[in-house]
Amino acid sequence: MSRVYNFSAGPSALPEAVLLKAQQEMLDWQGTGMSVMEMSHRGKHFLSIAEAVLQDLRELMGIPDNYKIALLQGGATAQFSYIPLNILNGRSKASYVKTGSWSGKAIKDAAKYCQVQLAANSEESKFTSIPDVAGWQVDEDSAYLHYTSNETIHGVEFQEIPDVGDITLVSDMSSNILSRQFDVSRYGLIYAGAQKNMGPAGVTVVIVREDLIGHAQAGVPGIFDYQQQIDNDSMLNTPATYNWYLLGLVLQWLKQQGGVAAIEKINIAKSNRLYQAIDQSSLYSNPVDENCRSRMNIPFVLANSELDKSFLAEAEKNALTTLKGHRSVGGMRASIYNAMPEAGVDALIDFMAEFERTH
Amino acid sequence: MSRVYNFSAGPSALPEAVLLKAQQEMLDWQGTGMSVMEMSHRGKHFLSIAEAVLQDLRELMGIPDNYKIALLQGGATAQFSYIPLNILNGRSKASYVKTGSWSGKAIKDAAKYCQVQLAANSEESKFTSIPDVAGWQVDEDSAYLHYTSNETIHGVEFQEIPDVGDITLVSDMSSNILSRQFDVSRYGLIYAGAQKNMGPAGVTVVIVREDLIGHAQAGVPGIFDYQQQIDNDSMLNTPATYNWYLLGLVLQWLKQQGGVAAIEKINIAKSNRLYQAIDQSSLYSNPVDENCRSRMNIPFVLANSELDKSFLAEAEKNALTTLKGHRSVGGMRASIYNAMPEAGVDALIDFMAEFERTH
Repeated sequence: MSRVYNFSAGPSALPEAVLLKAQQEMLDWQGTGMSVMEMSHRGKHFLSIAEAVLQDLRELMGIPDNYKIALLQGGATAQFSYIPLNILNGRSKASYVKTGSWSGKAIKDAAKYCQVQLAANSEESKFTSIPDVAGWQVDEDSAYLHYTSNETIHGVEFQEIPDVGDITLVSDMSSNILSRQFDVSRYGLIYAGAQKNMGPAGVTVVIVREDLIGHAQAGVPGIFDYQQQIDNDSMLNTPATYNWYLLGLVLQWLKQQGGVAAIEKINIAKSNRLYQAIDQSSLYSNPVDENCRSRMNIPFVLANSELDKSFLAEAEKNALTTLKGHRSVGGMRASIYNAMPEAGVDALIDFMAEFERTH
Repeated sequence: MSRVYNFSAGPSALPEAVLLKAQQEMLDWQGTGMSVMEMSHRGKHFLSIAEAVLQDLRELMGIPDNYKIALLQGGATAQFSYIPLNILNGRSKASYVKTGSWSGKAIKDAAKYCQVQLAANSEESKFTSIPDVAGWQVDEDSAYLHYTSNETIHGVEFQEIPDVGDITLVSDMSSNILSRQFDVSRYGLIYAGAQKNMGPAGVTVVIVREDLIGHAQAGVPGIFDYQQQIDNDSMLNTPATYNWYLLGLVLQWLKQQGGVAAIEKINIAKSNRLYQAIDQSSLYSNPVDENCRSRMNIPFVLANSELDKSFLAEAEKNALTTLKGHRSVGGMRASIYNAMPEAGVDALIDFMAEFERTH
């Protein structure tokens, strides 16, 4: 057996140490004689796992006491509806910033439930830039302002939390949560699918300020009501227990790495090296403005797109997988989340140089 | 390490062979160099896993071609709302049969979206019986009739599919799917959370006749629309990929056991032996009518409830775990799904006899 370097955008590579731990505990979690996936979600063993997940997440992100954490299902996609259905709280408008494919989807779903005010839109630049926050048109009557902190497909990432005054800030952090430090107190609500920086797909983390809870629209299904979910410790229906457990293992691993501040330094180093390699070559290029290049998802195209197939095939032979870009963008994309070791990025850079030399 | 016999009602015991296979493949699925949980859900490897899940389920249950299968999130609880939101199709009424706690929850949620007609209700018997279908009051204007084929908490199971004429039959089969043969063509819609007979929690199987799809109420979130889910191969949001994989391993295991007909024989034998042991003792008793006793969940009480604690503690010492009954019923409950080996049931019976002898 030999492991590959997997550059998938999500579900994506997990720390090998996490997989080894899960493997070791598969048939017998800590002497209980059963797998975590066989445990009752109401039993003391699983409840201890769930509690550790919440504590570790709170510690790693510095989540203040007046924020609740829910572990939900349905991915970030469910949250696109969940959010207006829960926090409009009688208002008819919400502001959204459009910086790529995922914020576009959030807008489309929100428009079913409210009047969407586009505060900013970088579509004209083909989503290779982020409009300066000073020029955003923020509607003061908006219940909240939503932005996507990192666009997985376009490789565009906010380098600062936008200052939008008193308006409630909501962010989809699916692809950069835990990869850099965020001041949670600046937000009303943060959400993220786990399958990039936190664990396997099947659990969505929602961090929500207490005052935003309890205002679900009438008739919303119970599992779509933050209040009901939080009152029931996210166990209104049987939770995806094994996925919570793996999320917990990833959080423990991250603590062992030194936490978010430490991994952020590594993420800066990894992405800088890869961007430098791209910028210094004449074969590869990345179209995104330097001030908003993503540390997590790095799309690049080859000067001659006829080489794409050879690039992917030869990369695969070198155990560098899932580098194909999203169909809407083309070219290549290297997703280098927390779990991608520096050696993986270096191997990719070496391969890219060798490929350029020989083609 | 020694494994226990785990009588949890769900999440519950999985076949040891499935866990061993998952353990073996944890870091490297079939030479890909990656774990299933690291794979892109759009890649060929995972798509082959997903396709096998659907094919195996279709084969095991004999699902006709005019039925679609969706693998969703949110548990059976989400379906309690999903169903009226999708298949009322303009009608204002739906009929429900109340035979225990879970059908009660389904009714409560449905009542948010339609007028619920109670076709039958066994609450007076404390849910220890199922009213004869000949006496059911089925409203002909109902969009559908819903029943719970096995009540996990009360241990009550339908032994026949109720004949309700032309009305669309809908069933929550969470706790007895794949444990016995069902003629799927008798149903409009079948749903089941995976965490009892199919795999770990985090995936819900929905089997729905084509003509019932495409009638979602306006404004329903996309992930709550069967049509959108099925059009997107249940990947409208990133699916719980690892949970699908484990579901697939369980289905393969069941095929190796000889399929549903073969496991049904074993389930009859296992449950008969345990009921016989209960009926023949003077310490244990089960309150459910003989004609509707569950093969999956067998609640029993001790004549002297002061012995409950000792019973549970001594059972635990004998590696027989999670036997405590649901708080709403009290006493004990042995859940003996497909994955519970005959030896586990025999070990429980032996322990019960020994406990009775010594107390």
